Amino acid sequence: MKKAFVTKSQVEEIVKKFPTPFHIYDEKGIRENARALNAAFSWNKGYKEYFAVKATPNPTIIKILHEEGCGTDCSSLAELLISEKCNILGEDIMFSSNDTPAEEFIKCYLLGGTINLDDLTHVDFVYNALKDYIKENPDTNRAVYDEIMKKESEGDNTPVKGVLPKKMSCRFNPGGVFTLGKSEEGFQVMDTPGDSKYGMTEDQIIEAYKRLSEMGVETLGIHAFLASNTVTNDYYPELAGVLFSLAVRIQEKSGVKISFINLSGGVGVPYDPDMAPNDIAVIGEGVHKKFDEILVPAGLGDASIYTELGRYMLAPYGHLVTKAIHQKHIYKEYVGVDACAANLMRPAMYGAYHHITVLGKEDAPKDHVYDITGSLCENNDKFAIDRELPEINIGDYLVIHDAGAHGHSMGYNYNGRLWSAELLLREDGSVVQIRRPQTIEDYFATINDYWNVI
Amino acid sequence: MKKAFVTKSQVEEIVKKFPTPFHIYDEKGIRENARALNAAFSWNKGYKEYFAVKATPNPTIIKILHEEGCGTDCSSLAELLISEKCNILGEDIMFSSNDTPAEEFIKCYLLGGTINLDDLTHVDFVYNALKDYIKENPDTNRAVYDEIMKKESEGDNTPVKGVLPKKMSCRFNPGGVFTLGKSEEGFQVMDTPGDSKYGMTEDQIIEAYKRLSEMGVETLGIHAFLASNTVTNDYYPELAGVLFSLAVRIQEKSGVKISFINLSGGVGVPYDPDMAPNDIAVIGEGVHKKFDEILVPAGLGDASIYTELGRYMLAPYGHLVTKAIHQKHIYKEYVGVDACAANLMRPAMYGAYHHITVLGKEDAPKDHVYDITGSLCENNDKFAIDRELPEINIGDYLVIHDAGAHGHSMGYNYNGRLWSAELLLREDGSVVQIRRPQTIEDYFATINDYWNVI
Repeated sequence: MKKAFVTKSQVEEIVKKFPTPFHIYDEKGIRENARALNAAFSWNKGYKEYFAVKATPNPTIIKILHEEGCGTDCSSLAELLISEKCNILGEDIMFSSNDTPAEEFIKCYLLGGTINLDDLTHVDFVYNALKDYIKENPDTNRAVYDEIMKKESEGDNTPVKGVLPKKMSCRFNPGGVFTLGKSEEGFQVMDTPGDSKYGMTEDQIIEAYKRLSEMGVETLGIHAFLASNTVTNDYYPELAGVLFSLAVRIQEKSGVKISFINLSGGVGVPYDPDMAPNDIAVIGEGVHKKFDEILVPAGLGDASIYTELGRYMLAPYGHLVTKAIHQKHIYKEYVGVDACAANLMRPAMYGAYHHITVLGKEDAPKDHVYDITGSLCENNDKFAIDRELPEINIGDYLVIHDAGAHGHSMGYNYNGRLWSAELLLREDGSVVQIRRPQTIEDYFATINDYWNVI
Repeated sequence: MKKAFVTKSQVEEIVKKFPTPFHIYDEKGIRENARALNAAFSWNKGYKEYFAVKATPNPTIIKILHEEGCGTDCSSLAELLISEKCNILGEDIMFSSNDTPAEEFIKCYLLGGTINLDDLTHVDFVYNALKDYIKENPDTNRAVYDEIMKKESEGDNTPVKGVLPKKMSCRFNPGGVFTLGKSEEGFQVMDTPGDSKYGMTEDQIIEAYKRLSEMGVETLGIHAFLASNTVTNDYYPELAGVLFSLAVRIQEKSGVKISFINLSGGVGVPYDPDMAPNDIAVIGEGVHKKFDEILVPAGLGDASIYTELGRYMLAPYGHLVTKAIHQKHIYKEYVGVDACAANLMRPAMYGAYHHITVLGKEDAPKDHVYDITGSLCENNDKFAIDRELPEINIGDYLVIHDAGAHGHSMGYNYNGRLWSAELLLREDGSVVQIRRPQTIEDYFATINDYWNVI
């Protein structure tokens, strides 16, 4: 049973200042969840969560999580800039990207963040990008600049130590099909890393570590992402087992010591109210057990565990609040709301289920069946299809649950529809705007100089 | 065989001024296609194409089409404002929306556009919205204002003629399943209007026409959309037959005369190069035949035919041009490019096929198999999967075909990725920018006042 963290009377108060539709986040829930996560991994001295900025790229959210000890997991230049503007810098930044332009690696380097290489070819790509940058900007690191120039004058093509940062990471892809558990309904988790564009093979990652070591990188880590939005306490421990064993093999085969293991994302939330949520304490203990079984005996007991959770950190703590503005009775019953897929794309893009609460009717019988639609000229612009709900009247406020991650951040402007505001419900019950809604002028920004080309 | 409308040497010249990725449109192709469409329907005196702005909401494109006689099909306030800024007004605007807020109907009314009602309840909704607006703004129409006030003072609740515009339309939904043709491969076209949120039932639409007539609306039309992106010359004639017969029944049952029939969109393009494209001349003749068979004998031979094509008008005349920036060899072969789903979402959202030409290698053997990927942290961010292509080298320019409609307009900013520029290849071979690329500052516009909320 999902319960909204705002009531009808709260929303009636909020809309006096901030009209629907809007996203609202629950500071209390966010902080309590982050603390439970940190507690679950407190057995690991170096543990750190790097919040996946892409899930909810809002400065206030990111700063709240930073207050709770989280860094940022950035995947692009824009996300690095957000981290910088939030004053989250250095080792608090993990840069896990793919198909990455050179300028983005350079930006991460300048911020002191940890670059997580997606591919073996990126060893040279990053090295060359940084070397070129240092050559053009000698003040970045004068000693390294001098060494580059010295080697070049001597015709020495061996890598210059110090060009690459001291701490780096590589992304692993085990290939094949990843499965977990099995019941009559099938596998608990099933995904196909072998079809995914991310990471390196085992041979490649060992080669990458050897080369990075030779190039002066001292602190090396592993990263892998095998399945999205898992709702089972077994996924992280299973993944940890895979990566811990790999760390041991890497040490055996190459002599390179792995200092941190990044379990990345994948620990999800139950969008469906009938599913049992993950128990982060059980997950933390499961990883701990694998750590003691695999890493400690191999002399790797001082390795740090990192995570890059996004959905788990935010999804349940964000609602999309929208108002019923039309009722329609044709071959089915429709309720039209003032939000649309521009505000939350997951139902349209993935056919994703998002639970809906009609505020003020939490305990009313669910004796109606509705499609809940937005206004896009796309028939997939439906927040719910054939959903059992209480009778909805025009003017009713609907809470669309679990919209805190990959909600606002996946907003688009199809049909010229605009992004909604983001609000924060503070721990003291007050509400503050943390992103203003888009305006038509924002939407026109890139064409405003182009009305009269012809 | 799809052929790019730009060559490698042209793109090498263009990128000196406008770096990849960018969308580029072919003015010559757009104009020739629009002329062929108008010629195909020239047998109908009142024929008009209303370009579906949502497909390519770019002022220059819209104005080129307006020069070719096309109006605008708008679905939102933003699209109405674009039409207004392009000085495309009055009966040149068709407003085909759904789940529409009152302010958008009012804006269309003020621009003199034709409102296409999606639902029976919208008769009252629009009437009340416009009446309230006129009451608050008496100068909008002083005579109607006086009549409203007179009736209100007399306690007369009957509708005031003149509140609603003189010309309006209603959207029909026949329900059930729409099928067309049948071969061994299945139906040529199959869609499920009964599951779609749009339009009215036959009983409802007849009721709507009666009421609109009583409320003083003089020129009435029908609109329906039964299937998306059809690639068959039979769809429009079949749809026309359905709507023409409905027009006759409406006249018989209600005495209301239908003055225009809007076949809306649905005539598509073959994304797959092996498919035969629609022949618009054959389609126009097919509609003509139904017109002569059904409407003329019923005394409706002066009805106008309207269309609301978007994809057909633009998709083939737009390329997304992108550069190969990474090669990756793991369990599959990947080429990473500098565009991503933020620039063209259809492959990620719909698994849509978009043909790819590697510029300069048009005639090279397709002896490699690649996944072509963007940089989003989404494994669905692939422009092609297991695609046979010539060998691709870093630095090669790729043309992603049929990106002229529902391409740039479906752009989002996931992962903080930015919209690309839109360029126009003029008929004289010159290239001009018609939308600038987004900047980080554009992306930050809605959070720039919110870096320090906490």
